[in-house]
Order: sequence, then C-alpha cells, then structure tokens
Amino acid sequence: MTALTTQTQSTGATFEKLQCKECGAEYALEAKHVCEVCFGPLEVQYNYDLLRQKVSRATIEAGPKSIWRYRHFLPVATDDVIDVGTGMTPLVKSQRLARRLGLKNLYIKNDAVNMPTLSFKDRVVSVALTRARELGFSTVSCASTGNLANSTAAIAAKAGLDCCVFIPSDLEAGKVLGTLIYNPILMAVKGNYDQVNRLCSEVANTHGWGFVNINLRPYYSEGSKTLGYEVAEQLGWKLPDHVVAPIASGSLYTKIYKGFQEFVKVGLVEDKAVRFSGAQAEGCSPVAQAFTEERDFIKPVKPNTIAKSIAIGNPADGVYALEVARKTNGHIESVNDAEVIEGIKLLAETEGIFTETAGGTTIAVLKKLVEAGKIDPDETTVVYITGNGLKTQEAVQGYVGEPLTIDAKLESFEHALERARTLDRLEWQEVLV
Amino acid sequence: MTALTTQTQSTGATFEKLQCKECGAEYALEAKHVCEVCFGPLEVQYNYDLLRQKVSRATIEAGPKSIWRYRHFLPVATDDVIDVGTGMTPLVKSQRLARRLGLKNLYIKNDAVNMPTLSFKDRVVSVALTRARELGFSTVSCASTGNLANSTAAIAAKAGLDCCVFIPSDLEAGKVLGTLIYNPILMAVKGNYDQVNRLCSEVANTHGWGFVNINLRPYYSEGSKTLGYEVAEQLGWKLPDHVVAPIASGSLYTKIYKGFQEFVKVGLVEDKAVRFSGAQAEGCSPVAQAFTEERDFIKPVKPNTIAKSIAIGNPADGVYALEVARKTNGHIESVNDAEVIEGIKLLAETEGIFTETAGGTTIAVLKKLVEAGKIDPDETTVVYITGNGLKTQEAVQGYVGEPLTIDAKLESFEHALERARTLDRLEWQEVLV
Repeated sequence: MTALTTQTQSTGATFEKLQCKECGAEYALEAKHVCEVCFGPLEVQYNYDLLRQKVSRATIEAGPKSIWRYRHFLPVATDDVIDVGTGMTPLVKSQRLARRLGLKNLYIKNDAVNMPTLSFKDRVVSVALTRARELGFSTVSCASTGNLANSTAAIAAKAGLDCCVFIPSDLEAGKVLGTLIYNPILMAVKGNYDQVNRLCSEVANTHGWGFVNINLRPYYSEGSKTLGYEVAEQLGWKLPDHVVAPIASGSLYTKIYKGFQEFVKVGLVEDKAVRFSGAQAEGCSPVAQAFTEERDFIKPVKPNTIAKSIAIGNPADGVYALEVARKTNGHIESVNDAEVIEGIKLLAETEGIFTETAGGTTIAVLKKLVEAGKIDPDETTVVYITGNGLKTQEAVQGYVGEPLTIDAKLESFEHALERARTLDRLEWQEVLV
Repeated sequence: MTALTTQTQSTGATFEKLQCKECGAEYALEAKHVCEVCFGPLEVQYNYDLLRQKVSRATIEAGPKSIWRYRHFLPVATDDVIDVGTGMTPLVKSQRLARRLGLKNLYIKNDAVNMPTLSFKDRVVSVALTRARELGFSTVSCASTGNLANSTAAIAAKAGLDCCVFIPSDLEAGKVLGTLIYNPILMAVKGNYDQVNRLCSEVANTHGWGFVNINLRPYYSEGSKTLGYEVAEQLGWKLPDHVVAPIASGSLYTKIYKGFQEFVKVGLVEDKAVRFSGAQAEGCSPVAQAFTEERDFIKPVKPNTIAKSIAIGNPADGVYALEVARKTNGHIESVNDAEVIEGIKLLAETEGIFTETAGGTTIAVLKKLVEAGKIDPDETTVVYITGNGLKTQEAVQGYVGEPLTIDAKLESFEHALERARTLDRLEWQEVLV
C-alpha cells in the first residue's frame, strides 16, 4: 500500500483511504480505481466516529442549498469546493400520477431540474472536479452517454479546467450540442459506450488526465450518495419504504443505498427496511436479466434502445446492484422502448415534469411494478427522475401529436377547437384524473 | 368601479384593488386588464402599511425556497398556492466572464435553471395559475413566444387545469415539443406574436378562459417582481448598482424595478440609485430605437431575429420600460443576431451556463455597454439570464463546431488530439482567462 498523502489528514477530513470492495486491500487517496491485487473496484472509506462528531441535522440544515451541505460525507479535503448550486432538487409529493397508479404515498425526486446541466450527473461531476483540482489535475475528461459530457464540460468551463470529453458517435443532438457549447474538445467515438469506456481507460494510462468516471471514479461515484441524503432530509429525516431508480452502471442505485446506510450509521435517521427496485430498458438490461434468471453474475449485452443515457452493456457495478435488490426485497425490471415513451408522457401529463428516456424507463417500471402488485399502495415510495427531456427530444418527437395550425382569425380558431374536441384531444383532466 | 370581491379581504391579503396606470381609475380584483375609461393597463395595488407589519427579513428567510417566500408581495389570497419549486435560482458571482469583460463585481441571475420549465416564465405562471384557480377558472390559456407555452402547459398539468396554448407557427422545435409533451391543446397561429396576441384577446372575450397574459395579466406580471426580491436578498439584503435585463414586452424589466422599490418602501433594503439597462435584438428593437431617438412613444416593428422569445414588435409595457431606463440613467441597447450567438457562446465557455437567444442578447448587450464605457467596472452589476439554451438549439447549431469523429482506438484518438491542437481548438483557458 502506498503511503497515505498528508493532504487530507491535516484538515480533519473524514475520508481516510481507498479500499478494494472485493479483497479489502487499502490504498492512498490518489487517482486510482482498480485494485492491484484482485482488480476489484476501489471505494472511499470514511471515519464514521469523526463524522458522527462533525455532523448533525442542525449543521446540515444550516449549510448551503446544494450537495455541499453534506460535504463531510464527500471525499474532498478542500474548503474551496466547486459549488454551482448542484443538488437539493425538489422532492415532489405526487398527486395526479399517484392517483393514476393507485398509490397513496408517491414522491418524485426531480433531478431533471438539477443545476447546472439538468441531470444527476452534476452531483458526481461537482465532487469529481473538486477532487481533481485538489489532486492537481489541470485537464479533466470522461467517457459519457451524454449527460456526463454536458456536466463535465459545463462545470470544467466554470472552474477554468481544460476538458476533453468522449461520447459514442450516435448520441442525441441535444446532448452533443449541449456539450459543444461549453467549448471542450469533444471526441465522438465510432462504437457503443462500452467501447468508448475501454478507449478512455487506455487514454487515462497514457495522458495525465483526470477521468471523472475512470481514475477518479471512487470520488466521483460518492456524489450520488447525495440523492439518498436529500430524500431522507426532505422526508423529514426519515427513510422511505421503497425506492425505484434507474440502473445503468449500477453506481447511482448502489450509492443511494450507501447514502441511507451512512445516515443510519451516524444517527441522522432511524434504521428501517428500505426496498430497492431498479429500472432498465429492455434493449440493454443485463442487470434485470441476471435478476430474473437468479444469476449472481452479469452477462454483457450489446445495447439497442432509445434510452441511450442508461445503455451500458457491461455495467461496472451491476453485481453490487443485484446484491442490493436481493437483500432489500426489491425487484429489477425492464420495459420496452414504447413503454419508455409512454412513461415520459405519463409523467409530463400528470406532474408537469418533462424527463428524458431514463426517466421514462423508471416511470414505466414503476407502473409495471405497481400493476404486478410489487409495490404496496401504502408504501412511501420515491421514484428517481435523473435527467431532462429537452435533451432527448427525438425520442418522443413522433409520439406527442402536432400543434393545430390555424390562421390568425377567430373563426379559424373555433374550427380547430371543434376539431380538437371531436378528435378527443379534449379528454383533458377527466381522463387524467 | 365594480364592488370589490370579499374573497381577498377576509384573509388579510395585502393586495387591495386594480388601478389604471394611466388615469388612476380603480377596479375590483377580477380577471381584467384594461381600463374602461382610458384603455390604460391595470396594475395590482397593495396596502404597504399592512405589508410592513407582515413581512421582515426573518419571515422571508424562514419561508419556502421558492417565489412563495414573498407571497405577501404577490396578488393571491389563498394559502393553497401552486408551488412547484419556482424561483430562488442561483445568483452566481461571475469570475471568468467578469475577467473577460473587465468587470469586478458582476453577478448572473440564472433563470436558465428555473423550475419546472427552465425560464423566468415559471414565476409569472405560478402566480397567474394560482390566481386563476382562486378566481374560479378551470381552463387556462396564453399567447406565447414559447417559454410561456412550456410553462403554462406544465404547471396546468401539475395543477390539473385544462389548458389551451397559442404560439406563432414558426417557433423553435424544442419549444413546440416542450409544450406538446404536457398534452395541452396547442394552436400554432400563422403569424407573428403580435397577431397571436390579438387573436387571443378576441378568444378571451368569447370564451370564459383565464389567459395568463391577457385578462390575468395584472396578476401574472407581478410574478416578475420576484426577480428583484431574490437578487436583493441574495446580495445580502442590498440593491445592486446596475441591472441589465432583456426587454420583450417590457414587463419583466419594469417589474424588477417595482420589486426593488417595494423592498425599499417596506424597509427591507436601504434606498439607493440602481441603473436599469435593457437589451433587445436588433431585428425587433422598438424600445431601443425609441430610447436612441429620444422618443417617448414606441413605433411597432415587424420582428425579424433569431431571438424569438423576445420578439415582440408592439410591446405592451414599452413606454414604461423607456421611463425606467431614463429616470435611472440606464441604457437600452440592441445587438444583431451574430452578436446574440456570440453572447450565448461567451456565457457557456466562461461560466458553464447554456442560455437561449434572449440570454445571448442580454450578454451581448452587457458586453457592448462595457465596451462603450456605460458600465463602471466597479459597479455591482446583475445580468438577468431568463431561459435555457436547450430550447433554442437551432440558433447555435452551425456555430459551435463539430465533434471530432474517431475510431475506438488509441492511435485514432492521438491523431485527432494532434489535429485539434493544430486547429487551435486547444486554446482552452489560456485564451478564456
């Protein structure tokens, strides 16, 4: 084991070392993500006794309205964090969607309006780039299915870090433009995400860059724990009964679990059983398949779905996601692309929230689980919406109808209104309720 | 004058009547926007003595993290407000943009991440629909250049109100889809915004609908005052020295002014001179033209600009905007479409904020004013960014370069990186700083 750097020790930081999730080997707090002994993934370890001394509900509530109110639970030593208002997104008590599904206590955690780039990735990137800066990196990079590219480019721009981003070449237009606008170097790789990821691992070895989701991954992934912390705090310092979240690499899903566990561990919430259900798109559902087939290993697949942001065929944390689902009595389900689109529309029509394909997947799986009796109507259920629909407009373009084109005359309007009513476009809330 | 409704009196509401801005005639708090005597616009009047008793910095700070922390300054009587997390968007202290422009105290009020639909319109619509509901409307409507359509459709969906929205038929795809997704009736009118608006006035007279920006306009427009309140609170209960905001109808610009005045009036901030500068796109700049030509009336124009969200050729509050600019020693400037695009890119590259054409216009005008010596580098200057760039992607599509397409091989990457460096795409922060 490399000697621990002193940098984090001197500031009373609460994180102590990296440790292999598989064999337990320990490492210094460097830019490193794979165990040299067994090739397992490394994870940040904290001193929970120190954490317990440092944090309370009151200190958190007095903190900034962002993920940095939980900074002692995050692996950065500096006080000079990159705070662009990320986090503390609304936890919405659902009325109309809940009624449609027959649920009594449904909440929507809405990261479709996360800052600055409208997805949960702003959480992990804020942490990763703060850590990158304190580890001395001047260039940051990532392998991305889109949202991560947007977020890394935007926050790097704000922080004045050089940035080079890698994406599969077939991404949605909004995600490409939503990256280019921040003026990074953008590499569109002919291949799927898993190929992009492999290329980036090679680049990480040859250039001295900080790849947020490769060599900085242990720090980066901790950012997702804030999705757990915030829900617990927003529920009045209580854990929910059931969580439904999308699974791509499996990192978000498992880190929400870790977030809840940590809050219990330091005494911020009471312990209770929380069921963890996961959502995948049928065209890329290696974790759901393993769950259904009761396997404890993942068979990689080649993605083929409109839900590109969660299309990871060889998910790094897939087996850990499986473990969480099984030990909490949750389910991992998949839905097809038509159901994904219906999920997007359902959420928009009932709650006024426009989510991207990943969110459509999650809503569709929620519906499926309810219909299969796998969610109790009385359970306090939290569904995680992780990105904004303006980024994947092509996915729903043909499925939302067209405007009624009219002349600027009252008569033309009256005709169109009549037409709309005949066409049953005026079902409106009667149907929705 | 119609008898005042009792509805607002019984709850100790702080708003008392509608009053004509021109002749002072008074009206009951109904769905009414034009004076019967002189055809002037109606405005909500408050009881400031009562306001002074009801609000303090502490009561506001203890309120929700949304525009509703200022509810006593807003014209709704109900406690059951539609709160979808709108408002309290970040006020960002600019580092990199400020340095580029040579300003020392520049702040960006970022409504590009306003909730739920990523523009300042969520503020006015939250107020208008809450008021519509308490006035008994079951169908809401609007004439929109896009952002208002998104917001009205989304918040109506959430609130379970029927919704019919009118837009010009040539709007950006993102704004059309970003309305349809909420399943309202959407009327695309062959004509420009001013024609849409005239048609809607007719519809408002024949149907019993609540048009947020027509018969509900006096209530609706008050929502923009929160852009003033929030900045004052976020600056530590102080007013800035200089404000730069876009001018479309002129409503937002004048209501920010009103917000500051009211905070002074009830003793929440100290009085001081605040300069108000306004931004228009050259292709639709009737207010800027009147300002330059020192006219006190507006000559309507036919819009021709990519900045569609602010393309109002016959602005309802244009003369009031002129008045504010003149009495505060501000300026109203316009920029051409190329400068609008440069403005969008400049803000993204330096601050990681992707704004739409209206924001590009405002940033470009800010730059122009600085270069003309019309903003002092030491002034505390707040620039208002009012909408998100994901909605007007076509405006910048050809101007942000392309990704570098590569094979999933290290060698292909190295070649591309070399190419990028040669092409000076690697100017990165050296240039930006």
